[in-house]
Amino acid sequence: MGKNVIVGQSGGPTAVINSSLAGVYQTAKSLGAGMVYGMQYGIEGLLKAQVIPLDAVLKTSMDIELLKRTPASYLGSCRYKLPDADKDPEVYRRLFHTFDRLDIGACFYIGGNDSMDTIAKLSAWGEKAGSPIRFIGVPKTIDNDLELTDHTPGFGSAAKYIATILKEIIRDSTVYDLRSVTVVEIMGRNAGWLTGAACLAAGDDCDGADMVLLPEVPLDPEDFLAKVDELQKNKPSVIIAVSEGVKLADGRYVCELVSEAKTDAFGHKAALSGTGRYLADLISHRLGCKARAIEFSTLQRCAAHVASRTDITEAYQAGGAAVKAAFEGQTGKMAAFRRLSETPYQCVVEMVDVQAVANREKAVPRHWITPDGYQVTEDFVRYARPLIQAELTPIYIDGTPRHICLKAD
Amino acid sequence: MGKNVIVGQSGGPTAVINSSLAGVYQTAKSLGAGMVYGMQYGIEGLLKAQVIPLDAVLKTSMDIELLKRTPASYLGSCRYKLPDADKDPEVYRRLFHTFDRLDIGACFYIGGNDSMDTIAKLSAWGEKAGSPIRFIGVPKTIDNDLELTDHTPGFGSAAKYIATILKEIIRDSTVYDLRSVTVVEIMGRNAGWLTGAACLAAGDDCDGADMVLLPEVPLDPEDFLAKVDELQKNKPSVIIAVSEGVKLADGRYVCELVSEAKTDAFGHKAALSGTGRYLADLISHRLGCKARAIEFSTLQRCAAHVASRTDITEAYQAGGAAVKAAFEGQTGKMAAFRRLSETPYQCVVEMVDVQAVANREKAVPRHWITPDGYQVTEDFVRYARPLIQAELTPIYIDGTPRHICLKAD
Repeated sequence: MGKNVIVGQSGGPTAVINSSLAGVYQTAKSLGAGMVYGMQYGIEGLLKAQVIPLDAVLKTSMDIELLKRTPASYLGSCRYKLPDADKDPEVYRRLFHTFDRLDIGACFYIGGNDSMDTIAKLSAWGEKAGSPIRFIGVPKTIDNDLELTDHTPGFGSAAKYIATILKEIIRDSTVYDLRSVTVVEIMGRNAGWLTGAACLAAGDDCDGADMVLLPEVPLDPEDFLAKVDELQKNKPSVIIAVSEGVKLADGRYVCELVSEAKTDAFGHKAALSGTGRYLADLISHRLGCKARAIEFSTLQRCAAHVASRTDITEAYQAGGAAVKAAFEGQTGKMAAFRRLSETPYQCVVEMVDVQAVANREKAVPRHWITPDGYQVTEDFVRYARPLIQAELTPIYIDGTPRHICLKAD
Repeated sequence: MGKNVIVGQSGGPTAVINSSLAGVYQTAKSLGAGMVYGMQYGIEGLLKAQVIPLDAVLKTSMDIELLKRTPASYLGSCRYKLPDADKDPEVYRRLFHTFDRLDIGACFYIGGNDSMDTIAKLSAWGEKAGSPIRFIGVPKTIDNDLELTDHTPGFGSAAKYIATILKEIIRDSTVYDLRSVTVVEIMGRNAGWLTGAACLAAGDDCDGADMVLLPEVPLDPEDFLAKVDELQKNKPSVIIAVSEGVKLADGRYVCELVSEAKTDAFGHKAALSGTGRYLADLISHRLGCKARAIEFSTLQRCAAHVASRTDITEAYQAGGAAVKAAFEGQTGKMAAFRRLSETPYQCVVEMVDVQAVANREKAVPRHWITPDGYQVTEDFVRYARPLIQAELTPIYIDGTPRHICLKAD
């Protein structure tokens, strides 16, 4: 086995993807790795030989601590899908040549289902070529849509952010003695995990979201309007959480209705967005009621200042467990979480076949959504609540959280 | 002097307006007030006799502590402007009748320049009518646009939120090896204080915003595009902070250009918003570069989970000082901050004539903006940096910050 290790980050960033990087780095060093290299901008950067010796940039225990608390991909990321090996073997030859040149014994890739496809393809090529290099995936996605794992690092922090700011928005939305509807649009194209997390705003001090609209349930606009009207009879300020990916019964995205009708100020077709805006306009138009739309936007994946400590810890563990497995000889796997118990919450990390994770998506089970389709059930809450527990306060310097970042070359 | 006290909250909420309420309540009690009443939904609620005895709802020291950490107006708010006394004296007779019925000796109103107009009118009526009731205003606005005070409670927390999430967005925006422009739209219709606060994201670990566009400086779109193009030559990821209230040289709001061109999905003219979206579309259209827009939205005024401790403390002090002044016989005043020194930062609260504050707005001084109009100066940073210092971590219960709120009747 080569004596060095390489690690990359891929896909959309999260608040805790760097904690997984810290887990990979520290575990590799403690298990006796020589150099730990980082791919700059993922596998795409590696193809251009953009490699960083991490020992040169992560020098102190404070650097590691900041890494755990810094959002977004420290190494840079990419959205690059490896070609099929039989169609373009040259790409694989180049990558394995780089691995050999760097004396790599194990390669780790932190990402979502596309990234697991990368690990699956690299390990398949390696096996065929008789390479001793081990390839292990480390799960990462705020969308929580990976198969074979109880949940994914990144989801807990995004869910905590959503629940926290939704509570604040609910307080804000009740200050005037007025009827109003607030529609908050939440990320998640095909799976409603993040939108369902809006239920976590509820507690002794807060009603939470009055409706949650997930992509798993087709939206009937007329039924929806009737329901909003009904809700407003008992509650002047109604809060609706909607996934950006909500669809109609005919399979079209609700946001497609917007872009059909809308152009930008330059006469171009507007970008696909605005599910929340569309529903707010619909309510205001049809129910004659003040309605506002708020997009939670990119903060959902980078609000490290309100990250879940459980998530940070588990992200680190996933990275560390991946390294341990590789050093024990495993390859073609992904680190996955298995929930041992709910009360108290306990999860362990184990290895699963990365091929069975790649390119697949896990939706919210239908029985975790109420029959009318407008709420998640207590089962969902029991599942998600442990993942947002506890905090890791940023290290504030001069009023803002301190981050660590690679200096531009 | 009547033995009881009444307090109301008005205008848009902030993260610390309840800390001022706590300051009024506790100081009034400690100075020997009988009952402390709260106006539900401000002066508009008071006209309907919606009054809450605060002793009945703020029972424990934990209640007070939660109040300091709960965003938005605990008592409810309104946007109601008192009519001129000579045109509609009946409104004043009713209000003073209620004051007398409740044996009120002092009345406090926490709000912005419209709320100071309320205090000015009430104290003028009181003086004319020979009423012994004292009226004092407590400043509150994230916009920081009140005259005669160094700054306003609410601004520091909004500025801290903006600086914190902008740092996170900057980390997020640099993960791909791509040219991109991110335009963040920040509140502030006529004054650029909040947009200027984007400069506070800068530090050893972050470049901060590359451009800030304030309402104080007319925007020349061609010059702006040339500047963005120039910036991109040296920096692939450009960050621009723009005030929702930026205007063209002819006085029109930039966002008016949007609504001229745009309609909502129902064919109605779109609401006045989207300055950031417009500029992002303009950049993408003219410079052929990926550009995204992010609205910081209502979170700017309610993100108590990342409030400035300095702001929370000063908001409390402003409320307390107002009560002390009233009990010493003052009326027709507003509590204002005067900065004694910058190094170290020290401010005191003193009373100023509320009439001189009402209905006026304070802009960012032109000499705190660079000659080209695209940045704020070091003077602005020295002014704003102390206001975002230190934190008061929320009391997290089961993963989200705990709030206190009035139960619905």
